[in-house]
Amino acid sequence: MIRSADNHKLKTLRKLRDKRWREKLDLFAAEGEDLVAAAEAAGWEPRFVLRAGKDVEPDLLAQAGALGSGSRVIGVYERRWSAPEADVLVWLHAVEDPGNVGAVIRSAHALVDGLVALGPGCADPYSPKAVRASMGSLFARPPARAALAELPGRRVALDARASRTLAQADLEPPLVLCLGAERAGLPAELQPEAVRIPVRADSLNVAMAATAALYEVANRMAGHA
Amino acid sequence: MIRSADNHKLKTLRKLRDKRWREKLDLFAAEGEDLVAAAEAAGWEPRFVLRAGKDVEPDLLAQAGALGSGSRVIGVYERRWSAPEADVLVWLHAVEDPGNVGAVIRSAHALVDGLVALGPGCADPYSPKAVRASMGSLFARPPARAALAELPGRRVALDARASRTLAQADLEPPLVLCLGAERAGLPAELQPEAVRIPVRADSLNVAMAATAALYEVANRMAGHA
Repeated sequence: MIRSADNHKLKTLRKLRDKRWREKLDLFAAEGEDLVAAAEAAGWEPRFVLRAGKDVEPDLLAQAGALGSGSRVIGVYERRWSAPEADVLVWLHAVEDPGNVGAVIRSAHALVDGLVALGPGCADPYSPKAVRASMGSLFARPPARAALAELPGRRVALDARASRTLAQADLEPPLVLCLGAERAGLPAELQPEAVRIPVRADSLNVAMAATAALYEVANRMAGHA
Repeated sequence: MIRSADNHKLKTLRKLRDKRWREKLDLFAAEGEDLVAAAEAAGWEPRFVLRAGKDVEPDLLAQAGALGSGSRVIGVYERRWSAPEADVLVWLHAVEDPGNVGAVIRSAHALVDGLVALGPGCADPYSPKAVRASMGSLFARPPARAALAELPGRRVALDARASRTLAQADLEPPLVLCLGAERAGLPAELQPEAVRIPVRADSLNVAMAATAALYEVANRMAGHA
């Protein structure tokens, strides 16, 4: 039972709140029973797992966690990057919010068994908030890192200013669904491929736009099956 | 220029972080330029607006805000509740996460110009996180509070365990789309009306499920138009 905050596993946990340390150690932490169970279900071997009251004093574990909710179990794993190959890829451009990155990983996995490819300027998918938002889909479908030019397949870009709608787009796989952050948008080269989700208000956030678009893709795939 | 934290407007702002005070004063705060502009666009008269460097010292305003990001402008408004009447209503049951409540308000407004009706056990839609997540849709379409029995219209309940899929459901308005929290689910009386969104992984969160379902509703409405 760990009873000192100086313990090297707790030190590692505290370091892993920091992106530079995650890159240096090539590790990340997943907090909570659900995520540790999802890692196990997906066959990820943890570097170590700490359980409050069993391996470590609960207060010490809560202080070492990053989510503020006082996690009762935290697992540490090696980072993985998928090759950018899937029937449906979601390419994200400059999506800086880690919660949105994690949410898109979750949606892509849930709706079309798809993979997220991270372009430039995206939040770290292995940050605590992104891992939490992915709800285990990160373990099932680790993201890829890729420039747009590397990705094969039909490109469909979601852009609120496009004239065509998503419903009019050809979405047959292999498909690369491209989304940018709400303000910055997408690279200009994607404008000819752009379609929009018809909305009345300002716009949906990137996670919601991805969810709607992936639902449409899933529906079409079910229709063709 | 306000230079003291004892100022009564700053005191009010600090109180409005707390649900009991929001109820007692029947007020809430909206933080950030975008939200204050959305309130104005929707014709909401503020009780007062404080701008950093103009009305108040920036540090004092940042400390009085609830979002931790150091807002430069905060507006205070009277709460409003809509009557539960719309072609498309989204009824939420026990959705405790304020970010999800706000996100569903945003999706409903954006995709179908719909209204959210809050059932028992939902987070306060006027909490800082919910207001932020609604991105101004709260001003355009203030939520209703209603028991399910009060709501007119065809009921379609989203439940991951249902045998029919959303694609098979009759979604013609007037429609009440019913969603529960991820774990607690929906009241048993709704089971005969339940449909599911076909997913491969565990499930989508309530905001994503609502977004996918509302996208389907919007598509059908466009098709009928």
